[in-house]
Amino acid sequence: MKARVVVTLKDGILDPQGKAIEGALKSLGIDGIDSVRQGKIFEMELATGDRTHAEGLLRGACEKLLANQVIENFQVELL
Amino acid sequence: MKARVVVTLKDGILDPQGKAIEGALKSLGIDGIDSVRQGKIFEMELATGDRTHAEGLLRGACEKLLANQVIENFQVELL
Repeated sequence: MKARVVVTLKDGILDPQGKAIEGALKSLGIDGIDSVRQGKIFEMELATGDRTHAEGLLRGACEKLLANQVIENFQVELL
Repeated sequence: MKARVVVTLKDGILDPQGKAIEGALKSLGIDGIDSVRQGKIFEMELATGDRTHAEGLLRGACEKLLANQVIENFQVELL
């Protein structure tokens, strides 16, 4: 089973990388993008076919390793 | 209008960061995740409400700045 986990900064947490991209897009002449926030995505191949088990596994992985829950949110998508 | 752009490594391109995460998950006792590949996600707020224009804008941004098309694929999602 395939899954993806998206980790993004919480609202209100400063994202200097996103700000740098906003500036770079403007200086390249690409107008119309008001704000950019950068996050991480993890594409995974799971051994299990059971959706409940897979979701529990991925939530555990996020809590223990992939996301810093003080400043980041995570979202699990089973494909 | 909100949009997200996902940039991932092409198949066959080595992903040492993903491999490190696979190893770290196993050493934390999280079994059942066979492979991990890490990518980037950009969450954007666009000024335009026109979907065709938005898609063109984002494809341009990917080609010029956000993705290295030699080794990366990108995917534009309008929300």
